[in-house]
Amino acid sequence: MADSGWPSCAKSLKGVILDLCGVLYDSGEGDGVAIPGSIEAVKKLKESDLQLRFCTNETQATREKFVAKLRRLGFDISVSEVFPPAPAAIAVLKERGLRPHLLVHDGLLPEFDGVDKTNPNCVIVGDAAEKFSYQNLNEAFRVLIGLEKPVLFSLGQGRYYKETDGLKLDVGVYMKALEYACDLKAEVIGKPSPTFFQSVLNDMGLKPHEVLMIGDDLLNDVGGAQHCGMKGVQVRTGKYRPIDERHPTVTADGTVDNLAQAVDMILSQRGH
Amino acid sequence: MADSGWPSCAKSLKGVILDLCGVLYDSGEGDGVAIPGSIEAVKKLKESDLQLRFCTNETQATREKFVAKLRRLGFDISVSEVFPPAPAAIAVLKERGLRPHLLVHDGLLPEFDGVDKTNPNCVIVGDAAEKFSYQNLNEAFRVLIGLEKPVLFSLGQGRYYKETDGLKLDVGVYMKALEYACDLKAEVIGKPSPTFFQSVLNDMGLKPHEVLMIGDDLLNDVGGAQHCGMKGVQVRTGKYRPIDERHPTVTADGTVDNLAQAVDMILSQRGH
Repeated sequence: MADSGWPSCAKSLKGVILDLCGVLYDSGEGDGVAIPGSIEAVKKLKESDLQLRFCTNETQATREKFVAKLRRLGFDISVSEVFPPAPAAIAVLKERGLRPHLLVHDGLLPEFDGVDKTNPNCVIVGDAAEKFSYQNLNEAFRVLIGLEKPVLFSLGQGRYYKETDGLKLDVGVYMKALEYACDLKAEVIGKPSPTFFQSVLNDMGLKPHEVLMIGDDLLNDVGGAQHCGMKGVQVRTGKYRPIDERHPTVTADGTVDNLAQAVDMILSQRGH
Repeated sequence: MADSGWPSCAKSLKGVILDLCGVLYDSGEGDGVAIPGSIEAVKKLKESDLQLRFCTNETQATREKFVAKLRRLGFDISVSEVFPPAPAAIAVLKERGLRPHLLVHDGLLPEFDGVDKTNPNCVIVGDAAEKFSYQNLNEAFRVLIGLEKPVLFSLGQGRYYKETDGLKLDVGVYMKALEYACDLKAEVIGKPSPTFFQSVLNDMGLKPHEVLMIGDDLLNDVGGAQHCGMKGVQVRTGKYRPIDERHPTVTADGTVDNLAQAVDMILSQRGH
């Protein structure tokens, strides 16, 4: 049955979408570290008859550099399988004739090389991390407040993520800061935007009920996927907190210790 | 009549509360600069039969240093007439047995010298300006997210203010950032908190309808005062923007070019 619960729903799946940070690896100094069992789990999924894509709100590097890092960590992943927000944002800019002021990580800047940034008429905020200085946030604020119709794009809306040395504030926090400062609502590009999930489903050529999303972020991964009609499973790695399992509005279809356990449960349901 | 409109309401006033930054002076390098006519306007109010207090969300310096600056700018103001959020916050900490982690401006730290800050069980955020680094915001976030019952105090909730070199983000923006990061609601100490306005009225021994608030911030000065039953007049200096005069929910009782004009109108209504 297409709509049976987890893990029995795995029988009828045609594809899986994985979040990256907190599911495959924990970010941190250098390349970060792979989460135990996750390299093997990705390998097993690739060898299965399931389609596999990676959907991430990662905005600290270009897609190429980011995938190179994952490959150094030992993951067999290629650029065309990975969907981050920046390329989607660039498509929106072109479509609407917008020129961005960028408050993003230095590592992401090359992604915007071909984009006209003169005389900006919108602001794009990504996970700028250390670049979220008072001065830089002020600068983005002044661009917005100076526009007759201020437009703010946020590459994701995460609250925080886990690095090897602890929890770090994510882009959503600074999105909220600018929303409040300018009394506006940002347009989110990335998870949990339905448009963003749909672009991944389109690439797979699958319907939502045929696909399972696995992530560590209850709201953006699990809730976002469920909102699109997919199943959503949360891993107890990355930014997972026990309180997630008692969330008032979002309930994961399943909660597993880690990706390795999720993949073993999926494949065992499918008789592997 | 006590409840007649501006400026005729000035006839029955017994007291005036003034905001400071953006009304008396514009902050900026050094001491900032006095707004033309404001030194004389304060003098005229002091010489009148009206009671006068200053109610500010200023949190970049101790009350003593702040008043010393105002006196250097030429204003005849004493410490006991000025009501900023920090002393009110310290009273709340004592009352509730709380030990703060401080994300405030270096200039405000001496105000908290006698306060136990070991093993913090709450966070106080003030207008930390350049100290609003990614690292410092992360640190405050980690304290909050580590508490079983996180408590966040915000010294005001302003969006931005004007310095001589342009608009600057205010504490409210970082309050919203931490609220979102930790999924909580901050307790605001300072304008527009009714408790805070009431403490000034208590000091004057006056009823709200006997007092007029004059400020440059439509929401925190004017709206806050009106919410307490006072009249609220906005000046077209400081952070004032023309769009304020078309605000959907807050309408000032009067809008004047500057403090000098407001005071002349008040005193002329009173037959001076």
